[in-house]
Amino acid sequence: MSRWAPDAQGRLEDAALSLFAERGYNDTTVADIAERAGLTRRSFFRYFPDKREVLFARSASLTKLWEDTITHAPKDATAVEAVGAALAATAEMFANRKKFVSKRQAIINVTPELQERELVKLASMADATAVLLQERGVDEDVARLVAHMGTTVLRIGFDRWVEPANKLALATILQQLLEVGDGVVATPSKPRPRRRATVA
Amino acid sequence: MSRWAPDAQGRLEDAALSLFAERGYNDTTVADIAERAGLTRRSFFRYFPDKREVLFARSASLTKLWEDTITHAPKDATAVEAVGAALAATAEMFANRKKFVSKRQAIINVTPELQERELVKLASMADATAVLLQERGVDEDVARLVAHMGTTVLRIGFDRWVEPANKLALATILQQLLEVGDGVVATPSKPRPRRRATVA
Repeated sequence: MSRWAPDAQGRLEDAALSLFAERGYNDTTVADIAERAGLTRRSFFRYFPDKREVLFARSASLTKLWEDTITHAPKDATAVEAVGAALAATAEMFANRKKFVSKRQAIINVTPELQERELVKLASMADATAVLLQERGVDEDVARLVAHMGTTVLRIGFDRWVEPANKLALATILQQLLEVGDGVVATPSKPRPRRRATVA
Repeated sequence: MSRWAPDAQGRLEDAALSLFAERGYNDTTVADIAERAGLTRRSFFRYFPDKREVLFARSASLTKLWEDTITHAPKDATAVEAVGAALAATAEMFANRKKFVSKRQAIINVTPELQERELVKLASMADATAVLLQERGVDEDVARLVAHMGTTVLRIGFDRWVEPANKLALATILQQLLEVGDGVVATPSKPRPRRRATVA
């Protein structure tokens, strides 16, 4: 194998996913993954702190994408519209990664340790989103509910997308789910107790 | 201390919460908790498998309460109404436990291991709720969204309730939050939320 490794990260991800599927997550080592990718253990650690993070490295980019999208959403966009934009951007980011997402979900679904990690990642993404929505002037309760609805839509959406029978694009699925959950936004314009008065 | 222990479980819970607050979760042992409660380690293990579960034993009763409430909700209750009934039952269950909830939240908020456990518990509660709602004939996506909205309302509601400035009852807080999130249910059968419009 060449010591020069184009897309080393991608190769390590693919190798890890294949090995996790073949041997199970617990019976796969960092050395196995590096070997399968034709790289050294040292190279592995240049990209990931441990084998678990191979599955979560993309979550960081995803969180960044949500932050950017929500921060730059039009000023008059509602909370749901801002989260909708983040979901649309997510669909674009993953459009060509269906095989990756599918294998990843399959491994997470049978490994409690990974399920916990996934829940923690999603919860912290929702919390970060809620803060950004509040900075846009959204009421705190609405911000938290819409943010958590957004990550719930994301989670259900990925499940739906990778179902063998599914023919719909991720973007379509996420948009449909968001419409199901949308009513949430109707409230802030109406009089409510906790609404942050008015910025005169 | 008497070997006969009325409400041993409650005493162990109170002892654990006090010690976690005083020394931190990691620096408190099962022996410490038993001693503070005037009980033996052996008694402790009759009630809890480990110190972490002292904080989560009530979650099992809570899950049971949600299951019972949702299963026995009137046949024509919508998904949100069924979850609303579960939230109301929860408020009743915890009405006299504010001090407990408050101390518990404080410890969880500063201990990542406990935050993970809490997220896992809430997620599995939401998943169980979604299944029960589907058994009631609710569409799968709506069931999952409403179930997750329910546990999100629960989480935000407890936070709100224990805020020092809060004067509202837990039942009121949960109901208000549910109203914020309510529109969710409107989509499948009706054109769109704003259903609160006029109560004829």
